[in-house]
Amino acid sequence: MKRVELEKKVISENERLARANREKYAKEGTFVLNLVSSPGSGKTMLIEETAKRLRDELRMLVLTGDIMTENDARRVARHGVDAVQITTGGACHLDAKMVDKKLTPYKDRPFDLVIVENVGNLVCPAPYDLGEDLKVLLIAVGEGDDKPLKYPPMVAASEVLVVNKTDLVEYVDSDPDAIIENAMRIKPDLTVFKVSCKTGDGLEEWIEWLKSRLAEKRQTRASAQG
Amino acid sequence: MKRVELEKKVISENERLARANREKYAKEGTFVLNLVSSPGSGKTMLIEETAKRLRDELRMLVLTGDIMTENDARRVARHGVDAVQITTGGACHLDAKMVDKKLTPYKDRPFDLVIVENVGNLVCPAPYDLGEDLKVLLIAVGEGDDKPLKYPPMVAASEVLVVNKTDLVEYVDSDPDAIIENAMRIKPDLTVFKVSCKTGDGLEEWIEWLKSRLAEKRQTRASAQG
Repeated sequence: MKRVELEKKVISENERLARANREKYAKEGTFVLNLVSSPGSGKTMLIEETAKRLRDELRMLVLTGDIMTENDARRVARHGVDAVQITTGGACHLDAKMVDKKLTPYKDRPFDLVIVENVGNLVCPAPYDLGEDLKVLLIAVGEGDDKPLKYPPMVAASEVLVVNKTDLVEYVDSDPDAIIENAMRIKPDLTVFKVSCKTGDGLEEWIEWLKSRLAEKRQTRASAQG
Repeated sequence: MKRVELEKKVISENERLARANREKYAKEGTFVLNLVSSPGSGKTMLIEETAKRLRDELRMLVLTGDIMTENDARRVARHGVDAVQITTGGACHLDAKMVDKKLTPYKDRPFDLVIVENVGNLVCPAPYDLGEDLKVLLIAVGEGDDKPLKYPPMVAASEVLVVNKTDLVEYVDSDPDAIIENAMRIKPDLTVFKVSCKTGDGLEEWIEWLKSRLAEKRQTRASAQG
């Protein structure tokens, strides 16, 4: 079998598992975010800031994916939410099977919100659905305003774009609105946030929106259960 | 054939081609750099600054790798050096075959220096030798001082570490020396530079070192030819 064919087979097998995950998590009432970005855009910091603001009102788990090291799970756990590391052992993305393996032990007391921190990579995670409700793409100011145009499959796969590190705007040659404009050329209906996880700027809008999506999902579930 | 076995086969076939490239470029007197980093660490800018400083003393070609878009080759060509884009069409790294295909048309008038800008990715390019003389890893201040520990295969595969964006040190929670220390835990004999492509700080040391490596290679070649 050729490499491309094998890759296609692996992706289609992953899609089957991701669909099963999605159905299962919907039944359990768990909302799942798949957070993707370059290394160093601030995924872990966005998760920490989100955890601080939501930990008192819902049960939250963070799955942090890395090819090596367990640092991120420790960083997140300091904020009083559950955190589990997924170490891929070299692979440049998570897949549906890895995620479900870590969630299965909790099936009898499911979480309200699971945030999956994917491996820092703007290429490989794009075609791998994990069964999430939302794929959130994080791009930091200063990475280059043309990044969305360079990694279009990742933009196309995402529903939300969070532009992070807006506190750096005056020190780097970067315009957050140009990042957004370039991303919207690829995906016009992106939901967009501009935040600084360092100063807290813009985080309120992100949290309010996330809460409204969680409420919406609970509503859908309640209707389905009659 | 399993996916891992196939990947190994692809890598070992690539190694054979990379060795052939290396021998050929040595004979032609071409020094080849393979520049790797996250998206947005400043590879293109380091190449632009290097081109400006070396274009008058040597024949230089830049191969810019991206999964899509041709922006980088255009950016580099403004500085009066040859620049050719390699678009991988989705693949998250360059390989020896792609590079040689772009260099073959120049075989009768070889370059002194070829800088290959790999796809922005800290995972996939690590096991793919292109036939380069040197793999140079670029990490920007602010990406997270633990990045070398998270991507050890890339650090281990590199001979040089360039820490970029030192002009941002006072605005981000980052210590360039911590990045270097973490990298040296994985690869103790790394050659290290701290630069700001924006202010020019540290670039002189980088250029002087590069020139000394080029001279060394020319010397070796002259001896070999008797």
